[in-house]
Amino acid sequence: MVPYNLLKTNGTAGYLNTGVWAAKAIKEAKMLGNIKILASSEDKKFSYVPKNYEIPKELDYFHITSNNTIYGTQMKQFPGSPVPLVCDMSSDIFSRKVNGKNFALIYAGAQKNMGPAGTTMIAVKEDILGKTGRTMLSMLDYKAHIKGESMYNTPPVFPIYVSMLTLRWLKKNGGVEWIEKVNEKKAQLLYEEIDRNSLFKGTTEKTDRSNMNVTFVMHKPEQEPEFDKLWKEADISGLRGHRDVGGYRASLYNALPIESVKVLVDVMREFEKRFA
Amino acid sequence: MVPYNLLKTNGTAGYLNTGVWAAKAIKEAKMLGNIKILASSEDKKFSYVPKNYEIPKELDYFHITSNNTIYGTQMKQFPGSPVPLVCDMSSDIFSRKVNGKNFALIYAGAQKNMGPAGTTMIAVKEDILGKTGRTMLSMLDYKAHIKGESMYNTPPVFPIYVSMLTLRWLKKNGGVEWIEKVNEKKAQLLYEEIDRNSLFKGTTEKTDRSNMNVTFVMHKPEQEPEFDKLWKEADISGLRGHRDVGGYRASLYNALPIESVKVLVDVMREFEKRFA
Repeated sequence: MVPYNLLKTNGTAGYLNTGVWAAKAIKEAKMLGNIKILASSEDKKFSYVPKNYEIPKELDYFHITSNNTIYGTQMKQFPGSPVPLVCDMSSDIFSRKVNGKNFALIYAGAQKNMGPAGTTMIAVKEDILGKTGRTMLSMLDYKAHIKGESMYNTPPVFPIYVSMLTLRWLKKNGGVEWIEKVNEKKAQLLYEEIDRNSLFKGTTEKTDRSNMNVTFVMHKPEQEPEFDKLWKEADISGLRGHRDVGGYRASLYNALPIESVKVLVDVMREFEKRFA
Repeated sequence: MVPYNLLKTNGTAGYLNTGVWAAKAIKEAKMLGNIKILASSEDKKFSYVPKNYEIPKELDYFHITSNNTIYGTQMKQFPGSPVPLVCDMSSDIFSRKVNGKNFALIYAGAQKNMGPAGTTMIAVKEDILGKTGRTMLSMLDYKAHIKGESMYNTPPVFPIYVSMLTLRWLKKNGGVEWIEKVNEKKAQLLYEEIDRNSLFKGTTEKTDRSNMNVTFVMHKPEQEPEFDKLWKEADISGLRGHRDVGGYRASLYNALPIESVKVLVDVMREFEKRFA
């Protein structure tokens, strides 16, 4: 929907290619106009977030992905942009403070930190809309949804209701400022163990490590079956990395308590004792 | 999505205009190609379903709406069509038996007879897809959703799960054959009272009366406030007609038991006793 609403017919948009989700966004956008990849970390298997690129002033917008679930990287700073900055925050929204003023459009699926799958949040500066020269199908037109007060179509009531409850829970506990500290502690605990433990290593640049998705591998991949046995015995689930990259990935979304991270760290220590 | 997937660039599609939902579908389809209205009941405020129209063989498809929630009409027979027949069954799917073979594509939002709002069912004959010559955005491409086994995007898990439970409930009780009889009884009970009662009258052609949405008005509209008081006292809710048409509308979807219809019929009788 982003290029459909923001990319002028014959216009050009800029994209930062930081992994699978960025690449999918780029593929779709290319069907609607000219797309310029301003920087990409594909050269090193998306193990870092590109920096020091220029954003041309003539772009219709510049699109970034704040957190990359599969490769375990996260943008710690957001670029100052001379054109509308568009951010896919699906996998780290409400996990940390961001300055909304820096963005012209933020979109995020509910299913990570907000609520159950089935709804998507859009925050958009209205003055960037309606400029494409494109005939707009109503369901794809952000303006139709704004005019309909998010009820242009019958809204997915249950996912929205549970998102409200989740955000109330967050607010009651101290809000985004509170959860940001919790998330930092959780990630720090696990990254410290990865760096300390002689059997494991991280897969990403340290400066770009995601607080949401911690990716790591074993120095000796032949030890994986034994490790898998041990963490499954400790009732940990979903630790295998995405099928496209292998290795391991611990997802530390808002809902995961620090106690769960401690269980994993203990398992890694125990494994080192037995197999190092 | 229907015209996007089925209407050839430079092709023509046929539509039957039976009310608000059909008109919305027509409006969107016109943005993608040539649309021919084969018949319309707008001349009599959509109080009937047009019959005896011709379906030209050169159309890409012919689109109908099986039930019209706002005007209270329903197609009792479906036209034999020389071109792919597409049906919006959102408001009466699983309320009665239909012969799937007659349709090339059926779509229906879950929120009437299937489950909570937030998911949509599509049944499509695959051989009608992929013929438009249009570059297809993946999210709008039925083929992408078929290839992804309905998980191209993160699916709305809760609405789908509850739809499954609802369909299991339906199956356990005797399936569509059973609920069709129940729905007929419910509708018959209410229409009989409307026809019998000296204070009320139906708004639609008798042959096209919907079993899902029963619309009626008062002979003397000035009596409405008194009637409203009485049905609200009986714990009936949502009986006011759609804001576009006024009057009254009783929605008798699968989930509504016949006992609720009896309560309304009793209220109408009582009202006649007091005010006729």
